[in-house]
Amino acid sequence: MGLYQRCRRLRFPGLHACGLHTAAVPTPPHWLVERLGYFEELWTAQVKRLASMTQEEQRTIKISLPGGQKVDAVAWKTTPYQLAQQISSNLADTAVAAQVNGEPYDLERPLETDSDLRFLTFDSAQGKKVFWHSSTHVLGAAAEQLLGAVLCQGPSTECGFYHDFFLGKERTVKGSELPVLERFCQELTAAAQPFRRLEASRAQLRQLFKNSSSVWKFPDAPETLQRVSGISFPTAEELRAWEEWREEAELRDHRRIGKEQELFFFHELSPGSCFFLPRGTRVYNALVAFIKAEYTRRGFSEVKTPTLFSAKLWELSGHWEHYREDMFALQPPGLDRPSSSQSDHSASPHTDTLALKPMNCPAHCLMFAHRPRSWRELPLRLADFGALHRAEASGSLGGLTRLRCFQQDDAHIFCAPDQLEAEIRGCLDFLHSVYTILGFSFHMALSTRPSGFLGEPCLWDQAEQVLQQALEEFGAPWDISPGDGAFYGPKIDVHVRDALGRPHQCGTIQLDFQLPLRFDLQYKGQLGALERPVLIHRAVLGSVERMLGVLAESCGGKWPLWLSPFQVVVIPVGTEQEEYAREAQQSLRAAGLVGDLDADSGLTLSRRIRRAQLAHYNFQFVVGQREQSKRTVNIRTRDNRRLGERDLAEAVQRLLELQDTRVPNAEEIF
Amino acid sequence: MGLYQRCRRLRFPGLHACGLHTAAVPTPPHWLVERLGYFEELWTAQVKRLASMTQEEQRTIKISLPGGQKVDAVAWKTTPYQLAQQISSNLADTAVAAQVNGEPYDLERPLETDSDLRFLTFDSAQGKKVFWHSSTHVLGAAAEQLLGAVLCQGPSTECGFYHDFFLGKERTVKGSELPVLERFCQELTAAAQPFRRLEASRAQLRQLFKNSSSVWKFPDAPETLQRVSGISFPTAEELRAWEEWREEAELRDHRRIGKEQELFFFHELSPGSCFFLPRGTRVYNALVAFIKAEYTRRGFSEVKTPTLFSAKLWELSGHWEHYREDMFALQPPGLDRPSSSQSDHSASPHTDTLALKPMNCPAHCLMFAHRPRSWRELPLRLADFGALHRAEASGSLGGLTRLRCFQQDDAHIFCAPDQLEAEIRGCLDFLHSVYTILGFSFHMALSTRPSGFLGEPCLWDQAEQVLQQALEEFGAPWDISPGDGAFYGPKIDVHVRDALGRPHQCGTIQLDFQLPLRFDLQYKGQLGALERPVLIHRAVLGSVERMLGVLAESCGGKWPLWLSPFQVVVIPVGTEQEEYAREAQQSLRAAGLVGDLDADSGLTLSRRIRRAQLAHYNFQFVVGQREQSKRTVNIRTRDNRRLGERDLAEAVQRLLELQDTRVPNAEEIF
Repeated sequence: MGLYQRCRRLRFPGLHACGLHTAAVPTPPHWLVERLGYFEELWTAQVKRLASMTQEEQRTIKISLPGGQKVDAVAWKTTPYQLAQQISSNLADTAVAAQVNGEPYDLERPLETDSDLRFLTFDSAQGKKVFWHSSTHVLGAAAEQLLGAVLCQGPSTECGFYHDFFLGKERTVKGSELPVLERFCQELTAAAQPFRRLEASRAQLRQLFKNSSSVWKFPDAPETLQRVSGISFPTAEELRAWEEWREEAELRDHRRIGKEQELFFFHELSPGSCFFLPRGTRVYNALVAFIKAEYTRRGFSEVKTPTLFSAKLWELSGHWEHYREDMFALQPPGLDRPSSSQSDHSASPHTDTLALKPMNCPAHCLMFAHRPRSWRELPLRLADFGALHRAEASGSLGGLTRLRCFQQDDAHIFCAPDQLEAEIRGCLDFLHSVYTILGFSFHMALSTRPSGFLGEPCLWDQAEQVLQQALEEFGAPWDISPGDGAFYGPKIDVHVRDALGRPHQCGTIQLDFQLPLRFDLQYKGQLGALERPVLIHRAVLGSVERMLGVLAESCGGKWPLWLSPFQVVVIPVGTEQEEYAREAQQSLRAAGLVGDLDADSGLTLSRRIRRAQLAHYNFQFVVGQREQSKRTVNIRTRDNRRLGERDLAEAVQRLLELQDTRVPNAEEIF
Repeated sequence: MGLYQRCRRLRFPGLHACGLHTAAVPTPPHWLVERLGYFEELWTAQVKRLASMTQEEQRTIKISLPGGQKVDAVAWKTTPYQLAQQISSNLADTAVAAQVNGEPYDLERPLETDSDLRFLTFDSAQGKKVFWHSSTHVLGAAAEQLLGAVLCQGPSTECGFYHDFFLGKERTVKGSELPVLERFCQELTAAAQPFRRLEASRAQLRQLFKNSSSVWKFPDAPETLQRVSGISFPTAEELRAWEEWREEAELRDHRRIGKEQELFFFHELSPGSCFFLPRGTRVYNALVAFIKAEYTRRGFSEVKTPTLFSAKLWELSGHWEHYREDMFALQPPGLDRPSSSQSDHSASPHTDTLALKPMNCPAHCLMFAHRPRSWRELPLRLADFGALHRAEASGSLGGLTRLRCFQQDDAHIFCAPDQLEAEIRGCLDFLHSVYTILGFSFHMALSTRPSGFLGEPCLWDQAEQVLQQALEEFGAPWDISPGDGAFYGPKIDVHVRDALGRPHQCGTIQLDFQLPLRFDLQYKGQLGALERPVLIHRAVLGSVERMLGVLAESCGGKWPLWLSPFQVVVIPVGTEQEEYAREAQQSLRAAGLVGDLDADSGLTLSRRIRRAQLAHYNFQFVVGQREQSKRTVNIRTRDNRRLGERDLAEAVQRLLELQDTRVPNAEEIF
């Protein structure tokens, strides 16, 4: 029995004490009363059952503890919490839940039979999930009582939890209400203590930091919900550490960096799309050029496919059935067609409908199928940077993280079944190369067939085995997520961690047995018979836009030279050197490097150097009389290391080398 | 009075003689009878007037001839044709019309007063225009009588003429009807001879080569029209020469080359959009990289702007008013919005409407305006390769010439009025550099203010003067097209001629005084006051897709090295050299060059070399035992010139040099 039930049982004793003045508490609706009645019934029955079990003979059961040790316990009496205390008081203090034979278990729920017992602490991802899951229930209870909310979903997330609820069409949660909700949550948690001896260390110290709106996807009648997000910790120290981390993260927020560095902006006239300014476009193009260079090395062929396709294509691919509500569909302007009233065609309703592509795969299937193919052409690796459009709800949009229009480093590999393993190995190697250059650690998860999978089980077996084998050979850490595959094939999801340790899902490798069937893709095999290719969807950066945001935050705006929109600023000591400074700038620009000039004679030299370093220019080229006469430059880095005098042409050449090799630390190894 | 009137006067004597069996001739509609009646009336009056004028005293008038010579003529009696005969029988044979005091004049219409007389021959663009204009009238008369057509427009074009007409909703012109129409046109022309002594040399020898459909843009009720296109010549030799040229052009048709070389294809599931295959994408990217390199040199900044914008943007820019029917508009999927029946908003009808951008300029205006600007930032040159969508009628689509989805090498220059001249000079120089590399000659036309122009006349004066001055300084040939400017500003249209001498309108330089007003663009001037920038729209390639098609035809599929998707094929003499051949291929690919391999041991060496040359591979690297042992390659060009043995690494290096300098003749100067 979790916190949630206990809070319900409390009947909200803190209600009148919390002093909420911002909203009237409505009369509880009839179904809430009913629900509480049901709960009372079930709770009473459960308490009775427990009492009757404990009154029976005290049966001894065997519990296997985390270290492998086995201990005796009393059935229906001994709790995981008691056993944790036996192991160490620290474990008892830090455990947030137990796992009994693999199932989540409340710490105070008595054990019933021989069991394998594990403890979840807040350190682990699973422990956080349980902890935040109970936090969101407390939040839900508070919202229900304080605001009269009708609760919707309230999951834990990668970094905290949120709860969606409905407050009526007009009512929103105000920022000023968050502290009141927060205080009431603490009171609910404290009030739950009589039911469980909560240590201070397990008090839920929480911060509710965001209110936004979301949309309840009820067909035909979408409702706008209120979403309150928060995070909670077992100790005050952890909360403080998180607050500090958060300040740093806010400093590094890519929207902030994007604005300060003039990389990009957003505009209400194109919601969910990004305008990349010259500097942002430079970073964007450098990322794309990086992937293109890898494509050349790795035998991928870039192609360009259209943006707008007939709905018939999306019917064929299955997107119209499964993804339609996320697609931008349209009717072409009327000129080509008789107007509908005059029409005597009896074609299907979608005859004219077009939709912007949300993915490239169907276009690549058309390309594979546009002429007969031979086994000699396989593997065929088609890469496409085409603009994709997805109708994300406006509430979910935020910076570059989720956009309605974006490009992916998307590729589709059509191969023979016996080429699959080599191709997967190639994909893993591709991921590894790119993430290493980008400075990310990464972790992979193999998702296997879900319950409703399509296709032959033996094909799945084989494919899952191939993926597993490739992962094992590859050697990087990976998990298995049983049943998490797509219905059309198993996949490897790739989670990277940025410099702040935050996780991002970027790359993916997905097998697809369905699209080749739907598009009836075939090639002539070595023996002359027609065979069906396997399709691999794969991306490394994922959305280029999102990756740009992740990188901006990861480097905190201090871009590595090869991505940097602030590579060099040339600073003349005095106005007499301005002409030479311009020459130096031109040399940089002619080489395709970013060369800016700060000839502002209103500022002293040191002020201008300082300004360049604050703007994160990787290098400053200072030119005085000496440098001018010798055609050299005096180089400093953004960390104010003095590299001294270098020949201008040689310096430009060295920068090009460092740029082309995409080193992360050009300033150190110049 | 032209051929047209005379044909009317004929009352179609050839009607029953022509033996058309493919369509019943309907009874002439009442308005046709009325029209002929009016014509008869006017014609009789004119004949009478002429007779009365000639019966008066014979008045002598002075006619100034082309060479500057002045001759006497008799008012209302002497015709331009008679004067042409006096000059030379050749001129009389080749003149197709006269110009009297700058006005077009039939050769047989008597002169009335002192005049400046010029003759138009078929050699000149104006002469062709007149000639083809009368051809289209003959075609119209034939269609009216043979097919019962209701005539619509029938203009002359760059290379011939066409006539649009309506045949009812169901009836189309069949290909087999074209020769019948053609014959009837000849008969109409011959029958017109009694009214004018037509020389054989001026007989209209014509070929009707295409029937297609077009759309009559009548608001709300578009009608599908039939379009018959043709071309005509004064002599049989010219017709024959054209037929030969046309065969060559058909061989060079970019759709044919695109298919044969696997550059691109089209698919009914995305009408009007092109799928670029790996080889086509390579050419495409090489073109874009060329322009990007010029952008770096010329201080243009590439940016990336969204594809989908609120209709409010298009209202602001004026596109919604003037261009709406050519735009793809859509409503976002319903999730974000209350459904319309529940809506209680009273916003404008376009609140939610989005449209795909047909042009980049409004997005660039938003970018200029997104923060305050200073004179120090000008000129700001924003370049964008964003995908543009225009709802071209399906009848007008054809290969890469007209697409619904394409990208331009589009840039917008925001500058201060006093920077205009330098910027225009820069634009002209840009055009010149690019077209020289592409091997095009070009011609420019300055289009000045039209009758309904917007803005201050003095601003226009100044701007037209600036453009004119820049054109004069530039020194290339240019015309003036009075009144052909856009309502928002004067422009320079650029027509290139490809290797076959065919004209293409690609580049453009347009001044715009209106968008800066509509978007209220401002910058802080040197004196601190807010000033309005001038906007220059400019493109060099125009649509990259279309330019790719023009280039394919211009080079007939024999691409210059830097654009070529067939740079090198490596051919091992025997199977023992296959491994070394693969190494050579890898060296080429690692350098970013196209390196293919033909190790087909089923074909002799000479057959494989021939195959490579027919496929237009710029170079063939043949490797035998000797080459393998010395790590060299034996090089041939696609014209089968033998360049002999070269070191492999040096050969790769030389190819890179030739590619990077974009020479047209790498095979000759290797």
